Amino acid sequence: MVVGNAHVKETRKLSRRSERSERRLFLADGPKAVEGALEVPGCVVEVFATTAATEQYADLAAAAPQWTLVDDRALASLSDSVTPAGVVALCRFLDRPLGHVVDATRLLAICADVRDPGNAGTVIRCADAAGADAVVFAGRSVDAYNPKTVRASVGSLFHLPIAVEPDPAAAVRAAQAAGLQVLAADGAGEVDLDHADDLLAAPTAWLFGNEAWGLPAELAGLADHRVRIPIHGRAESLNLSTAAALCLYASARVQRQ
Amino acid sequence: MVVGNAHVKETRKLSRRSERSERRLFLADGPKAVEGALEVPGCVVEVFATTAATEQYADLAAAAPQWTLVDDRALASLSDSVTPAGVVALCRFLDRPLGHVVDATRLLAICADVRDPGNAGTVIRCADAAGADAVVFAGRSVDAYNPKTVRASVGSLFHLPIAVEPDPAAAVRAAQAAGLQVLAADGAGEVDLDHADDLLAAPTAWLFGNEAWGLPAELAGLADHRVRIPIHGRAESLNLSTAAALCLYASARVQRQ
Repeated sequence: MVVGNAHVKETRKLSRRSERSERRLFLADGPKAVEGALEVPGCVVEVFATTAATEQYADLAAAAPQWTLVDDRALASLSDSVTPAGVVALCRFLDRPLGHVVDATRLLAICADVRDPGNAGTVIRCADAAGADAVVFAGRSVDAYNPKTVRASVGSLFHLPIAVEPDPAAAVRAAQAAGLQVLAADGAGEVDLDHADDLLAAPTAWLFGNEAWGLPAELAGLADHRVRIPIHGRAESLNLSTAAALCLYASARVQRQ
Repeated sequence: MVVGNAHVKETRKLSRRSERSERRLFLADGPKAVEGALEVPGCVVEVFATTAATEQYADLAAAAPQWTLVDDRALASLSDSVTPAGVVALCRFLDRPLGHVVDATRLLAICADVRDPGNAGTVIRCADAAGADAVVFAGRSVDAYNPKTVRASVGSLFHLPIAVEPDPAAAVRAAQAAGLQVLAADGAGEVDLDHADDLLAAPTAWLFGNEAWGLPAELAGLADHRVRIPIHGRAESLNLSTAAALCLYASARVQRQ
């Protein structure tokens, strides 16, 4: 069946954050993302697809709880891609309570006030690659379900638990209460990442700040240590997702020795 | 003086790669880039600035060999920024002969067929931060002087030597001839980056491939070793600039111990 405009129109509204937050639903665009979403039990409500994509992605169609045929124009209106791949999944929000997410973890990423959707997605992807147990979006961070974030995570949004906590200090305290040391990634930190193997062996929550202004001093002060990535050349800094990858991978290397 | 349209119009043509290549000139947009360019002897031909920017960046005006006042509209036509900062430098190409660049180095990045201008700039920034001695753009890589590359390098384009070599195999052989081992960053590599400290201690040229398809087998085969970044979670891969940062920083950590 090809659905009418009204259903697609309602679904399309999920491009707005307010609409996503209210309905706790978001869109995952493209076969990789749809495949990832379908692997999370109960996540996918419905998949919208063109006829061509239905033939191409028969395995996804077989796995979907509801597969809805739409024409190219309707599909394009649900996709944020310039060249839509023909499949978009309507998904339930994935975030879990902070207390659950920090429990029994060894490596965690806390993003405080991260504002760029692409950066947020790349941090999720790096955290996944480094084997982190979860990612916490704290403070006034970007919506983890922003289409650009979903895209930049390249499926990793569906691979590891995420939590949302409006108060970054509460996220830090929850991690500490769960037995994790909190290491703030801070260009002016007192610890050099390359000389911190003893520290890195312990269960760790990394705390990352905003792309432009980093971590506020009072928040960095709540961490157990502030760790700087050494800048050996003349670059002023590293971008957020690069810094996150270096910190998380440094922990993984030492923790898995 | 406020220059006429003809001069600005000629300069604006440098937004095209063909024009840049022919004249071996490019534009550096914004105070950070202009500052970086002015620190390289002989790099800056002329700086275009608005009256407001001239007041704001008096130190740059004092350092520039030629400071040309233009109106807001002319300045905007030279800038690739949505919100131009009011200063754009006309710069001479910076790349040096490959043989000079690989000589007496300890840590080098070779980008083969890197196509995204933003990625290329971020790799330059990471290489600078990791203390690499130079970056080589090999094969059909993006133009290092693309405005997006200049912007993404956040000044680092002016901090370390770069070279351009159309044949990636020639770049690999030049590095080897200069006494560097070549390590190919390769998801299917036989060496695990986290268990390679003995290897990493030697002078190294890292070889990075295209964002989408990585390194061709025959090129990876020319390297002395192929090194994989371990993927501990379920992510399929890392993006190019993250992978480059992890590899270059791993070398820096071991080389500087």
